[in-house]
This record gives sequence, structure tokens and C-alpha cells, in this order.
Amino acid sequence: MKHITDRLIEAIVAKKSPIVVGLDPRWESLPSELVGAALDAHGETAKAVSEAFIVFNRGIIDAVCDLVPAIKPQIAFFEQYGIDGLVAYKDACEYAMEKGLIVVADVKRGDIGSTSKAYSNAYLGSVQIGSKKIKGFESDYATINPYLGDDCISEFIDEVKKDQKGIFVLVKTSNPTSGQLQDLYVGNQKVYEKVAHMVNKWSTEIVGDSGYSPVGAVVGATYPEELEKLRALMPKTLFLVPGYGAQGGGAKDVVAAFNADGLGAIVNNSRGILYAYQKTDKAYQEAARAATIEMREAINSALEAAGKKYW
Amino acid sequence: MKHITDRLIEAIVAKKSPIVVGLDPRWESLPSELVGAALDAHGETAKAVSEAFIVFNRGIIDAVCDLVPAIKPQIAFFEQYGIDGLVAYKDACEYAMEKGLIVVADVKRGDIGSTSKAYSNAYLGSVQIGSKKIKGFESDYATINPYLGDDCISEFIDEVKKDQKGIFVLVKTSNPTSGQLQDLYVGNQKVYEKVAHMVNKWSTEIVGDSGYSPVGAVVGATYPEELEKLRALMPKTLFLVPGYGAQGGGAKDVVAAFNADGLGAIVNNSRGILYAYQKTDKAYQEAARAATIEMREAINSALEAAGKKYW
Repeated sequence: MKHITDRLIEAIVAKKSPIVVGLDPRWESLPSELVGAALDAHGETAKAVSEAFIVFNRGIIDAVCDLVPAIKPQIAFFEQYGIDGLVAYKDACEYAMEKGLIVVADVKRGDIGSTSKAYSNAYLGSVQIGSKKIKGFESDYATINPYLGDDCISEFIDEVKKDQKGIFVLVKTSNPTSGQLQDLYVGNQKVYEKVAHMVNKWSTEIVGDSGYSPVGAVVGATYPEELEKLRALMPKTLFLVPGYGAQGGGAKDVVAAFNADGLGAIVNNSRGILYAYQKTDKAYQEAARAATIEMREAINSALEAAGKKYW
Repeated sequence: MKHITDRLIEAIVAKKSPIVVGLDPRWESLPSELVGAALDAHGETAKAVSEAFIVFNRGIIDAVCDLVPAIKPQIAFFEQYGIDGLVAYKDACEYAMEKGLIVVADVKRGDIGSTSKAYSNAYLGSVQIGSKKIKGFESDYATINPYLGDDCISEFIDEVKKDQKGIFVLVKTSNPTSGQLQDLYVGNQKVYEKVAHMVNKWSTEIVGDSGYSPVGAVVGATYPEELEKLRALMPKTLFLVPGYGAQGGGAKDVVAAFNADGLGAIVNNSRGILYAYQKTDKAYQEAARAATIEMREAINSALEAAGKKYW
């Protein structure tokens, strides 16, 4: 059966682009003409921010939708503007799906069983209201925090199986203090390797035509040695790789996230694409497009040099 | 300086009630008259659920606001109904604050630095839009997931210090598989003990008049031995204790969460209070009130028996 990761890998190959554009809208970094128009229309309100985010996100999606297979809205940047912010979040997911993009909800949720089920309903599934099924914030994948163990993850597996959805479980994150907990040694393995084994168990259970599973892992580009070790530990697991660009990871750093077949990873870039216009004379859409093409070429060249061609 | 935990402890003593009522609204468990009225007014829509949640939550808050110091809305139960659900979440927080209750946002958020800052803005702080400061979903405390380490927690500390807010960091959760990751041995300590040391470092930095810190810990009632060990490891840390009632924890189990002064913990009950009406002939508010009084007596009796009187 074809599941979401099969679809994602087909799109990566078709677009020659193992890239996901991260949507982290920042009010203070938006093009001034968008900010001005929103303030004129709505004053200094969360509604103004929401409207500007909608215009900006749609502009980015239009600019990159033929270049990349997926986008990853980071919900925190919307949540801080309350209800209005979340209206823009929902719009980004829906508009991207209309444009044929796969949507990764970067929500990093996780809780005890029945509560995780509610999160899974929110981002991957639906709720039943009388005879109607209603979707809260639909997306194709959600990111999940593993601190609560399998109770949490298993609730998302229902939607993975029934509705052809996917998850990326945090294994090794890209931030400076990720090691505080994740790098602690449990016997001769680190905590994140233990989590990798948990994830691997789930992901080998559901593998599709592409050879990869809809149960994926988040592994940061900022720790290349860990990437290599984790690649070996979870051969069927698709990696979502944050940390490229603004956080310091480069094309050579991410090569280790890919298998010998040149597949198995999708690299995120948020600020480096969204706000590329700040370093050029181009308009934001044109600059985002150019930055995406540049990143695609850098990653494909690095993969080719490493003998990991997938095209 | 008086911070939020000082205010919470004053309210615990004044109301003789180390109890927080968890707001986990479940459509399928609401009193049928509320469901019927909402469906009549709005049809089978998320708006109907949202309106019913608002009526129910306000009813619960009215019923218990003189009996307990705090409520803890669990955002997942709202999030699954999308934007409409979150309108009800926001209403619950605001209405509870109007009624003088302290609000614990059970959101279990956590991410890399700048993203955690956005979450902190969303639940504890505010965002700046031109000359205006706007609050997304205001509350007094938020629950935080520690998997990403200090980068994540430190972003919340700004609001803890500046705006007299608080956090509860997940240490040992109440669910059956919490041990998968949390109980792994790192040398002779478990992962959750390592997290406890991280939390203790933060919480001893900010201690108020009450002797307790606004940096608290989540420690489940379902693991009484761990509670005792963690109480000793984090003497100044206020514990938020889930797992009482429906999840299996009883009054005797939670005694270990309290210090010798009878303080230092607040015990959550959600289903056992919200849906108490299903086991009686009483209306839901009256049943919630009776269940809260019963829980308060059970906990105070258990504390008294253990020589931990705080009143």
C-alpha cells in the first residue's frame, strides 16, 4: 500500500529535491510592504499579524511549490498570536495542500495516552460530532516528543495506519543543549540511541513500497557524527533534518542523513529561505525561490560527491 | 518578592486545598442537556462543541472556585476541535482568572530556543505589535517538556522572572510507559533523576517568601516511590501531581509529594471531578463540588495522618 512516506519520496525524486521549507513567520522579519498594508487595514492587532502571515505564507508557498515536496509550518510562531495566529496556521496548511505540497506540522506534541489521542486527532485525524467527522488542523505528518514513551506514540499510530499519515519522533535535536538529556549514557548507549531503537521498532512495522516508513525521526544537521550513527540504527526511517543554514549545518553535514540509495532524509530550511530577501535586492518571493534552488543544488552536489545519487 | 508560587501557596492554605481541577472537556461525557442545546443552536459543528465546552467549563469553575486555588485546562482536548476548540480554551483561562483562580496551562510545550520563546510568549508572556503588547493565551503556569534541555527551559525563565509566571517541567509522568525513557539508568541514577537535578538547579535560583520556587515539576501520583525520592531531590520545587483518581493514584499515594511542612505539592483531578455526575443523581456542578470536597478531605486526612499538617 502507498502511504505518506511513499508519496513524499516520489515527490522528492520527481522534484529532485530532498528539501522541506520551514514556515516560521516572524512579524519583525516580514517585508515592510506587507507589514504596512496589514497595519493600515487592521491597526496594531493580532488580526493584522495574522493577515500579513497569510499573505506572506501563501507567497512563499507559491514561490517554492514546484521546487520542493513539502513545507513545515512551526506552530509556535502562530500560537504566540493566539486565535488569530492559529487562523493563519490553518490557512498555511490548507493552502499548501491545495498546491500539492505535503505538510509537516511541527508541533512537537506528546502526552499521556488519551491526551495524545486528542493531539493526533487535531493534526492527523478528526473528531466525530454526531454524524459528522471534523478535522481540526489537518496535515500529513506531525512531530512528536518521545519523553512519555510508547503510550504517547501509539496513539498517533492509529492515524498513521488508517489515514495514511506520518510522524517524526524527536531523536536528536539541533539545538545547543540537546545533549543535556539526549546524550546521557545509558550503559554504552546514549539516551537518543535508546529513543532511536524505540522509533526503529515502530518504523520497521510499517514499511511501504518506497522501502521507508511513515514513522520517521527528527535528527539535527548540527550533529553530523550522530547523524551517521543514527542512519545505521534506523535504516527504514525517514529523517527530518533541521538545523541547516541559520543554525549552522551545511550541505556536507547533512549527507550522512541519507542512505546509500541517496534517499531517507528531508532537510529543513526556514530562515535561510523565508528571509533570503534581506540579503539581496530581490523581492521576497524571488529571493526565496533563488535560495531554494541554491540549497537544492548544494545538497544534490554533496550527495553526488558522496556517491549517493537518487535521481 | 511575591511570585506566582507564593500566591498559589497562600491560596492553598487559605482554601485548605492543595488541589487543582483539571479541565479535560470531552464531548462524549458532557451532560446531555448541554450537548442537546449546543446541537440545536449550531448543528453538528465544532462551534457547537466549543459553545458546550464554554458553558460546561464555566459551570465547573463556578462550582469549584471557592474550593480550590487553581485549574489546569488540558489544551489537547480543545486543540482537536481546531480554532473553535481554542476559543473555548481561551475562554476557560480568562473566566478562571476573573474568578480568582490560578491557571496552569497544560500544554507540555518545548522546542529549540527561539521557538520555545514563542511558546513562552503564547502562554506566559505577550507579543509586541507596534506600540501594543498582546497576549495570546494568558495563564499563570505552563507545563514544559524537558527533552531539548536548558535552551528550551531558559526561554520560559524570562517570563517567570519578569512577569511573575511559573512553569512545571515534566520529570516523572503518570502514564504506564513513562519508564521507557524516564527510568533508564544513567550510571546509578535514572533519567528522570537527572531531569530532577536540572529542574532543581533552576528552581533553587528563584525562591520566594513561601520557600518554594515558580519553577516546578510534574511528578505522577501513580509512582509513589519515585515521588518520595524526587521530593528529597528537589526540596524547594513545587510538584504538580497528576494521576489521582481515574489514573489510579489515591490520597495515601500522594502524601510523599508533600514536604514535612505539609506543602510543596498540588494534586490534579480531572475526570473524577468533571464527570462525577455520571455516578450520582446530582447535577454536574453539584456533583463536581461534592467530589472536590471529598478529595480535599481525603488528602487533608492523609496529610494529617502522616504528620504533614499545613493549616
